[in-house]
Amino acid sequence: MQSKKLKQTQRIILRFFLMGSYEHIRRLIPKLRPAELAELMAYIRRPDQIRFLQLLFEVRMAAPTLRELPTELAKDLINDVSDETISEIIRRLSPDDAVDILAYLPEDRQEHVLNGLSGQERWTLERLRLYDQDTAGGRMTTEYVAFRQGMTAAEALAELREKHQKSNFHYIYVVDETNHLMGILPLRNLVFGSGAIEIKDLMVPDPVKVHPDTPQEEVARLVSDFDMLAVPVVDEENRILGVVTFDDIMDVMEEEATEDMYHMAGLDTAERVFTPVSRSVRLRVPWLIINLGTAVLAALTVSLFRESISKVVTLAVLMPIVAGMGGNAGSQSLTVVVRGLALGELEFASRWKAIMKEVAVGFCTGSLNGLIIGILAYLLYGNLWLSLILFFAMVANLVLAGLFGALVPLMLRWAGKDPALGSSIFVTTATDVGGFFIFLGLATLLMNYLHIPL
Amino acid sequence: MQSKKLKQTQRIILRFFLMGSYEHIRRLIPKLRPAELAELMAYIRRPDQIRFLQLLFEVRMAAPTLRELPTELAKDLINDVSDETISEIIRRLSPDDAVDILAYLPEDRQEHVLNGLSGQERWTLERLRLYDQDTAGGRMTTEYVAFRQGMTAAEALAELREKHQKSNFHYIYVVDETNHLMGILPLRNLVFGSGAIEIKDLMVPDPVKVHPDTPQEEVARLVSDFDMLAVPVVDEENRILGVVTFDDIMDVMEEEATEDMYHMAGLDTAERVFTPVSRSVRLRVPWLIINLGTAVLAALTVSLFRESISKVVTLAVLMPIVAGMGGNAGSQSLTVVVRGLALGELEFASRWKAIMKEVAVGFCTGSLNGLIIGILAYLLYGNLWLSLILFFAMVANLVLAGLFGALVPLMLRWAGKDPALGSSIFVTTATDVGGFFIFLGLATLLMNYLHIPL
Repeated sequence: MQSKKLKQTQRIILRFFLMGSYEHIRRLIPKLRPAELAELMAYIRRPDQIRFLQLLFEVRMAAPTLRELPTELAKDLINDVSDETISEIIRRLSPDDAVDILAYLPEDRQEHVLNGLSGQERWTLERLRLYDQDTAGGRMTTEYVAFRQGMTAAEALAELREKHQKSNFHYIYVVDETNHLMGILPLRNLVFGSGAIEIKDLMVPDPVKVHPDTPQEEVARLVSDFDMLAVPVVDEENRILGVVTFDDIMDVMEEEATEDMYHMAGLDTAERVFTPVSRSVRLRVPWLIINLGTAVLAALTVSLFRESISKVVTLAVLMPIVAGMGGNAGSQSLTVVVRGLALGELEFASRWKAIMKEVAVGFCTGSLNGLIIGILAYLLYGNLWLSLILFFAMVANLVLAGLFGALVPLMLRWAGKDPALGSSIFVTTATDVGGFFIFLGLATLLMNYLHIPL
Repeated sequence: MQSKKLKQTQRIILRFFLMGSYEHIRRLIPKLRPAELAELMAYIRRPDQIRFLQLLFEVRMAAPTLRELPTELAKDLINDVSDETISEIIRRLSPDDAVDILAYLPEDRQEHVLNGLSGQERWTLERLRLYDQDTAGGRMTTEYVAFRQGMTAAEALAELREKHQKSNFHYIYVVDETNHLMGILPLRNLVFGSGAIEIKDLMVPDPVKVHPDTPQEEVARLVSDFDMLAVPVVDEENRILGVVTFDDIMDVMEEEATEDMYHMAGLDTAERVFTPVSRSVRLRVPWLIINLGTAVLAALTVSLFRESISKVVTLAVLMPIVAGMGGNAGSQSLTVVVRGLALGELEFASRWKAIMKEVAVGFCTGSLNGLIIGILAYLLYGNLWLSLILFFAMVANLVLAGLFGALVPLMLRWAGKDPALGSSIFVTTATDVGGFFIFLGLATLLMNYLHIPL
């Protein structure tokens, strides 16, 4: 339903843009999603893209739209806008969006743009820039509504009407004389309460809060678990510094899911579908070379058994089955545990139990698959010993897969690393080397029983 | 900061629970996250778990807590509660949560519980049950605040104070006499507007809306792109049926991310870290057996070249390198495209361009890795032909990896399937079979030049 209607709006915007009817466009733009506005960029020639971007800035849609564009294009576009225009634009954005836009510029231009701002504006942005982008501090906005606890509901409503008609607040924060956070006041409590009551008696006291260095995924989990619209960020002495809102949290959740999947596949999180080939190659090559190293390690393992293979070539035929199944089973265990860590399922519960479970599952699935491949091999080659070797190698390798699939992400987390980062390399190295070694090793020990024609 | 404090709260709750001081617990429970309440269950003996669950019901935390428990345990617990209690509990829940709780019961008990409800309650739940759980209809609540457009702001505020003090609404929906959705009225607009204005002049007209059969991931994308707190669900004639709120959307986003990762690894989305071993085995075995089939296919490919391997055993040593690298490069391409589809990056842009990009990246990374492994092999074996074969096989297999990594999810989406589901099987089958065939095939063609000692 939506997409059809929106596509028409896109066409209308393009037509108005070519006609120069910018006033119409300003009214139509808010009807589109940032992703759809970004899409329009592909239909506009380069010199006009800057003008379109300026229209977006005017209706405050530039920051979200830039985020939807491929990073390279976003950087290119912003860098073609003059310092003065950017300063002017930034003044109209909320501080957290302003910092995001700044980050697209090279370091020296950032300084220049900051110099064009007033002392207060500059100070706010400088302070926000200090925080790591992946933390509550990097995500928070410093535009929030905070009232002293002694105010009455009627006073608070009057001040809201007077000063905050246009602020985009979700809650009112109640503070004491020295800005310490005392509670959270939803607008509804204010509306429903009698006007004479002090707001400290309407507020929800002792609210959930975070520190500026709280990692963004932890903030996201809090917001999601408590169904909050916004979470306040406080310093060590409980003074309010800013607010992380649910729309930022939804972005974080998408980013975190992307990060987990990307890290498991050995991808850099900066890459997207339309990242230019040259950059994608640069981003992917390091991990592929590490993988080449582990593949060589697996090959060296096979190399130990060249003599056995030369005697029974069938071993070379069957060995990829054992190793490959280990890789797949390992990636199943890995995914369950990585996702369990991301969703907080393993936060309190026994990690030991999770490892033992994966080992047990590996034993069972290994037995079943070992049985199937053992029978199949017997039908093909008629050698019971070969089937037994296949069976035991499959069981052992799938147990190894479960063990490493669970152990690797837990160890990475324990070491303070991202549990997904590079985890699949460790696991497939274990299942490749392990699979080849166990299968070919057993075959070498029992070589005398393996009389199989070429 | 939070977790330390919360853990203490958990300990206090446990102590009060053992002492039977339920009144204290009722006050403490809302301070904990559902995941933390679920964690407490592990410390409570089975007969007492039911009593604890009842406390959770009383403070409306049972539904979210049950969702955090392993499905098996949640089902077990609910099934130990009497029909009468469940009916009573369900009456106090919002309809969408009530339907979730119902779903934990076997079909016949669901009927029985529904029979214990009044006609209106029953009708609401029966209607909600009709919708697929993964759609807007299955996610929506039917508890929302809707006012007629002719009302004044003062009338609306009075009615809110009188009737909706306790409802958990995010927006007020403005409807005409026959319940057609006319607009959305944020509480702030009501508060800031003068009392005499009609609410239709304060509302945001023509709001974003969805149909009951809109897939939940589409709803999530709308909410995330438009930064909405809730999206109304309307029928074909634009009559409001219910509302999907942002807290449900955050659950959807977590589910969708889990689903993508799980489907790529061949996991059933019903599985979690603490799913019992027997059930995990049942859920994983089908996919592992399909994988065994594809592994046999790869083995059969190797088997075609037994004679070449028997002459040059080194081929068996090197062949896993080419196949393994293809698998890794393929999973990189696959992840980028699957994630691009999930984030909507490929919604409007050229799919053909995405495929060509992955092929080009495969060519470049293949050339680089082929060069490295070619040089390494030359240093080890001193045979230029072998190095050339390795180089070309690596390039060809990584091109194949890029092609299938992009093509498979796009074809699955095109066929109306989940682009992640089983995609890695197709890709690794292609890179295994392809890798072995190209490398061993080239070696067989050039066998006369491969004089390599064992």
